[in-house]
Amino acid sequence: MNIVSIQFQDDKQPKYLQLFEHIKQSITAGELKPGEKLPTVRSLSQALDINSITVLNAYKQLENNKYVTAKKGSGYYVSNMKGQKESILSSGELGMTTGKDVINFASAAPHPSIFPTESFKECINEVLERDRGFAFGYQESSGFKPLRSSILGYIGEKYGIKAGNEENVLIVSGAQQGIDLIGKVLLNPGDYVIMENPTYDGAAAVFKSRGARVVGVSVEEDGADITELEKKIRICRPKLIYLMTSYQNPTTVSYSAEKLEQVLVLAKKYEVCIVEDDSMSELNFGNRHPITLKRLDIDNSYVIYLKSFSKILMPGLRAGCMIIPGQLTKEFTKIKHNSDLASSGLIQRALDMYFRTGKWEEHLQYMKEIYRGKYEFMLTQLERMEKYGVKYEKPGGGLYFWITLPKGLSAMEMYHECREEGLVLIPSGVFFELDHKNKDRSLRLSFASSNIEEIRHGMDILEKCLDRRV
Amino acid sequence: MNIVSIQFQDDKQPKYLQLFEHIKQSITAGELKPGEKLPTVRSLSQALDINSITVLNAYKQLENNKYVTAKKGSGYYVSNMKGQKESILSSGELGMTTGKDVINFASAAPHPSIFPTESFKECINEVLERDRGFAFGYQESSGFKPLRSSILGYIGEKYGIKAGNEENVLIVSGAQQGIDLIGKVLLNPGDYVIMENPTYDGAAAVFKSRGARVVGVSVEEDGADITELEKKIRICRPKLIYLMTSYQNPTTVSYSAEKLEQVLVLAKKYEVCIVEDDSMSELNFGNRHPITLKRLDIDNSYVIYLKSFSKILMPGLRAGCMIIPGQLTKEFTKIKHNSDLASSGLIQRALDMYFRTGKWEEHLQYMKEIYRGKYEFMLTQLERMEKYGVKYEKPGGGLYFWITLPKGLSAMEMYHECREEGLVLIPSGVFFELDHKNKDRSLRLSFASSNIEEIRHGMDILEKCLDRRV
Repeated sequence: MNIVSIQFQDDKQPKYLQLFEHIKQSITAGELKPGEKLPTVRSLSQALDINSITVLNAYKQLENNKYVTAKKGSGYYVSNMKGQKESILSSGELGMTTGKDVINFASAAPHPSIFPTESFKECINEVLERDRGFAFGYQESSGFKPLRSSILGYIGEKYGIKAGNEENVLIVSGAQQGIDLIGKVLLNPGDYVIMENPTYDGAAAVFKSRGARVVGVSVEEDGADITELEKKIRICRPKLIYLMTSYQNPTTVSYSAEKLEQVLVLAKKYEVCIVEDDSMSELNFGNRHPITLKRLDIDNSYVIYLKSFSKILMPGLRAGCMIIPGQLTKEFTKIKHNSDLASSGLIQRALDMYFRTGKWEEHLQYMKEIYRGKYEFMLTQLERMEKYGVKYEKPGGGLYFWITLPKGLSAMEMYHECREEGLVLIPSGVFFELDHKNKDRSLRLSFASSNIEEIRHGMDILEKCLDRRV
Repeated sequence: MNIVSIQFQDDKQPKYLQLFEHIKQSITAGELKPGEKLPTVRSLSQALDINSITVLNAYKQLENNKYVTAKKGSGYYVSNMKGQKESILSSGELGMTTGKDVINFASAAPHPSIFPTESFKECINEVLERDRGFAFGYQESSGFKPLRSSILGYIGEKYGIKAGNEENVLIVSGAQQGIDLIGKVLLNPGDYVIMENPTYDGAAAVFKSRGARVVGVSVEEDGADITELEKKIRICRPKLIYLMTSYQNPTTVSYSAEKLEQVLVLAKKYEVCIVEDDSMSELNFGNRHPITLKRLDIDNSYVIYLKSFSKILMPGLRAGCMIIPGQLTKEFTKIKHNSDLASSGLIQRALDMYFRTGKWEEHLQYMKEIYRGKYEFMLTQLERMEKYGVKYEKPGGGLYFWITLPKGLSAMEMYHECREEGLVLIPSGVFFELDHKNKDRSLRLSFASSNIEEIRHGMDILEKCLDRRV
């Protein structure tokens, strides 16, 4: 492409922005290819007869927007845009908004119609009666103390987690903020992070934005491949290992008790911190009692436990909690303070009341019944797909199925085809951090936000698309 | 000190933590001095006969907790702990909690008893009636659209800000989160940031945690020293300039219209982004009409406008907004999504209703009356201090006075003395990012959270302490 062809317009935007837009368009139009080097700042400023700062600012803007990458001492190169992946992720389909006539197997959030709005409203009003203005005053950065105590009691009873005390509990504005804080406290540019491959893209994005390098470990039917994990720990010396031990997203795998113990042994041997991200362990529909890695970390030394309330309660609450190893607690609280001072006092207080009045437990049982029904229904519907060579496991809990297509079929193509027919689901490419021979073979089907009729209709669409291809 | 003297205990914590605690104690006890180099990992592991990973992990732990600093290729050095400053900042006095018998001139938050709890509660209940579960569903990362529109209307009317449209408005969980997002989007390690000196410590901390280098610019009676600012821009080529243009914290200075224009000329000339942090411009008690830099940025190209609702409404809401220049909007929304997905939907919707039903404007007038009364009362009380050589300006708005002590008196000593007597205020050392000849000469007195009687009592204490020393 010819950057030099730009015609600056005096009365419009600043020159550097005009230049930025011009180069950006060349990149998105494919005139500038990934890996291609941009002209040096000096040469371009001479060619265009403009100030070199203008060129530099345009380049920095491109860098900030990830269109180019700066290589120290070498110059600016066009980035390798993850085109399709980015476009799926930014389309708002993943759990957020879809049109009315679209069946949504992508979203992991329950439909707003089954939120416990009434009972939570009662809690809000009771809190406002009781605390008045104090519910809106500045809060402790680590969280409303009675809530920290409620949560500690709940997870102690539910999971037998006895590590840590109230001081080690940190209330966060949702699990995503917890991941962000972990990145800030533990990661510096160049540090390594080991994650399951495939994994939750939103966590990987945060770690990478801290300049960390993500390394994947394969997932077996009872958790991460331990031999591979140890090998990679030895090679990379990671700053942290991020795992989802119950109904892993997206593979739906749960760790066996044995695997959890092996993971902790590795954590101790190599003195590395493990993040256990737990958003669904309560949603067990079979006989499996929820087990967590945190329970084994009896000294509260190695495992950062991160719990979301979005899947069981309501995602828009923006409330989650963490149990932080003792030696890191102070630093986490400070970084939470730097990030947003504290989470909403009103929401924290209402959530505390929700726990204390037994409403959480009641709602959990209600949600489990609803989800179990949808789980079982989707499972029977999946049997129809077996004749096309589709494979799947029975997770026994959680909110998803992870299905593998027969050889020769592309998950990305199937995604596009289903979408045309009015069904959105998530192709496996979104979840793979690294190359993998089966990267484009699976789909994640969530039953969280659809009702029984919608599930049936969605499965009809899937079958129709499979039928066309197989 | 002798690190080698450590006795490991097998049955206790992991070794690296025991080593971390041991060295930490040596640093806090002053046995290891700032700037002192720690033994190399290899030599210490040999001396203690332990694995080098254990030593490395202990050192990294020390680094994470800011006790030591790693210098590339050189080793680990004991950090320069800002002892007293840290202890004041972490004591929770700055706006959070103080004991019952303490007069609080430190906090910048209104007392919870005057929060509009009832009228906000009405908005919450109306929103829950209207939107039900959708108030608790996932929200757009950029914020609830009707709220973005309300805010744009409000600041358009109040400040004549016409730049940008709804797409450029980003709702954040309080201004502190806005600062955090700015750091994430714009700053890489080694980048320069220019801030007023003195300035808001909580912003400087965020920028520094991104690895940025902070450079101060002096504050004159009508805003930053423009000659000095341009000189520093030339030398440092900063990624951003952070300014508070109305009732600057802590100096209470407001920028003249002329200075604002000069600042924007510099932004254009050097193509640098300005952050305008505005938390108090509405609180004008005199004839000054609030003016902002953002109003001048008609192309929405150079100024990131950041507005807090904490001072006028309630700090615990955790709601603020930003107007982002067009070329940065997409990146900010993405980083907001990575940070916490979105801000609380319920709070956003209730705040929108608060604006739309005219309650905000009503409450603003009420708060202005209350604050004006306290401002004027504190001003008359300050006259008493003149006989001790205390100097101060009349800011004409905002929530603070910034008083300068006579030569020979230390603000830090005065802080400690007042504290003994039951009055907390903030010594200037907390706000100075860099050395300055008058760094320990001033105190910030806030009248936000005290009533008239408390102001009188606090000023009595200040006078008593001055009387003792002058």
